Amino acid sequence: MSDALFTDFYELTMMAGYFDAGTADDVATFDLFFRHPPDGIDQVVLAGIETVVDELVDLRFDDDDVAFLASQEHFPAPFLERLASQRFSCDVWAIRSGTPVFGNEPLLRVTGPLLQAQWVETLLINRVAYASLVASHALAVVQAANGKPVLEFGARRAHGPNGALTASRAAIIGGCASTSNVQAGQRYGLPVSGTQAHSWVMAFPSELEAFRAYAEVFPADCVLLVDTYDTLGRGIPNAITVAAELAERGHRLRGVRLDSGDLGELARGARAQLDAAGWHDVDIIASGDLDATSIAALERADAPIDAYGVGTAMVTARSDPAFSGVYKVAEVAGRPTLKLSSSPEKTSNPGRKQVWRTTTGDIVGLDHERHEGRALLEPMLRDGRRCSDTETVDTIARRCREAVAALGDDGHRREIRLSDELAALRTRLIEQFRD
Amino acid sequence: MSDALFTDFYELTMMAGYFDAGTADDVATFDLFFRHPPDGIDQVVLAGIETVVDELVDLRFDDDDVAFLASQEHFPAPFLERLASQRFSCDVWAIRSGTPVFGNEPLLRVTGPLLQAQWVETLLINRVAYASLVASHALAVVQAANGKPVLEFGARRAHGPNGALTASRAAIIGGCASTSNVQAGQRYGLPVSGTQAHSWVMAFPSELEAFRAYAEVFPADCVLLVDTYDTLGRGIPNAITVAAELAERGHRLRGVRLDSGDLGELARGARAQLDAAGWHDVDIIASGDLDATSIAALERADAPIDAYGVGTAMVTARSDPAFSGVYKVAEVAGRPTLKLSSSPEKTSNPGRKQVWRTTTGDIVGLDHERHEGRALLEPMLRDGRRCSDTETVDTIARRCREAVAALGDDGHRREIRLSDELAALRTRLIEQFRD
Repeated sequence: MSDALFTDFYELTMMAGYFDAGTADDVATFDLFFRHPPDGIDQVVLAGIETVVDELVDLRFDDDDVAFLASQEHFPAPFLERLASQRFSCDVWAIRSGTPVFGNEPLLRVTGPLLQAQWVETLLINRVAYASLVASHALAVVQAANGKPVLEFGARRAHGPNGALTASRAAIIGGCASTSNVQAGQRYGLPVSGTQAHSWVMAFPSELEAFRAYAEVFPADCVLLVDTYDTLGRGIPNAITVAAELAERGHRLRGVRLDSGDLGELARGARAQLDAAGWHDVDIIASGDLDATSIAALERADAPIDAYGVGTAMVTARSDPAFSGVYKVAEVAGRPTLKLSSSPEKTSNPGRKQVWRTTTGDIVGLDHERHEGRALLEPMLRDGRRCSDTETVDTIARRCREAVAALGDDGHRREIRLSDELAALRTRLIEQFRD
Repeated sequence: MSDALFTDFYELTMMAGYFDAGTADDVATFDLFFRHPPDGIDQVVLAGIETVVDELVDLRFDDDDVAFLASQEHFPAPFLERLASQRFSCDVWAIRSGTPVFGNEPLLRVTGPLLQAQWVETLLINRVAYASLVASHALAVVQAANGKPVLEFGARRAHGPNGALTASRAAIIGGCASTSNVQAGQRYGLPVSGTQAHSWVMAFPSELEAFRAYAEVFPADCVLLVDTYDTLGRGIPNAITVAAELAERGHRLRGVRLDSGDLGELARGARAQLDAAGWHDVDIIASGDLDATSIAALERADAPIDAYGVGTAMVTARSDPAFSGVYKVAEVAGRPTLKLSSSPEKTSNPGRKQVWRTTTGDIVGLDHERHEGRALLEPMLRDGRRCSDTETVDTIARRCREAVAALGDDGHRREIRLSDELAALRTRLIEQFRD
């Protein structure tokens, strides 16, 4: 099934309207952007660009799509014929995924027939907003963890199958070390990891038997979940027994995982017992509804934790699950335009724009201007065809790491300003539309 | 691509462990349930059952899946051969989608080889939890709207493509009248609706020209978005002009949509202007970040609103986006088992269970017991093959409507109790595991 119909119905009614009004082929430019970061996020990391660009290549209404629209008895036949005969043929410029980005900067710019640029609004926002939301949460969690590995395992809590796949990919872009979602690993070439759940321990007559059985099959990569019954009273002592048995077989117990209770206290207790038994190199992995805030607290308290597992809070973006990406028309038939709002900050920026990243801040200006710094919007599609290379997740994750470092400690506070020319155009248009 | 690998990596390591320990074919029973409703939800509506059951039919690891697992250099070859040679062959019993359900009731029960029952944990939770979350929010919104139509248009805010499709389907199950997502309409046979966005209005030299152009192409189904510039100062007067022009052509303006500002105040102002012009039958549709709470407030204030559009809060389940479905082993090889927890309410219920809905409350008991009332868990798969009919979304939505009505006004407070036999078994096992 094509994704031509992954669109709100009103996009189609508007497209039919443009077609009827004779403006369907007016060249229009739309911008995808956000106004402010979601709650709980200081630094937004852009993600999902490269995947949505791939979806736009050769996007077209197939016979089933057109038949479905005809069945709605809502659209004039000539309009449906137009849909059937076209493919997506716009130019798309975008900032590369993995780049830290800011409010009111165009992240992706579509220029082409008005009818087509309108068509892809829902698809673009859906794909980019959620991927960016998770990448941003991942960065926040990874920063809170002070460089310790963060393992993503949110598959079961993510919103639907593709929600989970998108989340896993975005988590790696934001800096996570691995995902638990095997399908995401397969599809995107991500490192996968995981060991055992409480059900493993419960499936054996005793915890010690469960631990021994796991060490039997994975002696070289054995991490034991120690909180099924009583973490410090039974779980850690049983793990220490298995560590000794593994050592006799020439293996090292790799770690224990704490998944409930006061993780700081339990980590200290577990560390003390393990150290007393001589197992200084057995890692402690903590999980259980962690987020950037709770991980930062554990780190401040110097909890002896070596790696973190995060799921729910990151993949559901619990602090603010609705990242309000918007897609606004900025120019039609050479005429710059904007959406007025009673709150000045919600009034959009007119014209075909570019973003320059300079040492002192970002400048949003008109495309034909020249500024110091690097132009962030790059051509991705020309006439609907790929004109950029496809990047691996590794490359994107590295860009994120390096670009965040380059922004410095207070990077998320950097100044974003309009160029003088854009500011003047905006003021003029606001006055014109107010009349 | 099959969904065999839509699973957390640790499910596979545990499956390898069972295989190695010789328990892979022990008959196990797992339960899918939740402990308490998500924040902001009184009544949980079950959804996603029929779709996940379809996914389980003939679920198998294909050659690519096995090759990917082999590439991880983690799993013994005999285990991979076992995966390659099997299909999902468990029995699955479940409560029908659309049923109002309660905490600590088994919603879906898997019985079969331990290795297989473990395999599908991530898939089951992922599919059922999010669908149920949105269906529950939809019910809450529809109840708040006092029977006025609620239109779902959250596609752009949902978490990824399937998040959006799942959300649209679940919204209809919970009682919404239509979705904006055309692909969801196509795939699931849902009613779709929508008219125009601000970009439509902005694409014309003036709002009036935009309204006229829309009325030209959709004279019989014309709803005008009136808040792009100034709702009461320009939007409604322009809509009234177009209403008169439509009337001359023998058509009726169907409605106006308010999408920002104080919706109650604006609705009153718009109603007054429309009525003064004689357009009593032009509907007012309100949208703009609405949820059950804000809709209830508008209804309490008698705002003259005829239909509501909801998106973000419902599809992202903003009040609590992480609905913690759990999947726990309840029996292995004829031996009932449970997961102990320091908080008694988190200790799971052992044994192969059934739920009876009686006039006074729900009873959770063991499968062989007999109780008054209707047994809610029905056979869906036997030996991995469908043994139940596939239901349409219409049928499921009707079940929801009727079952919620049957529970009565305080239905969400109904008593859920364990049968005496189950309670005794649970107590005995808790003491046994505590030793």
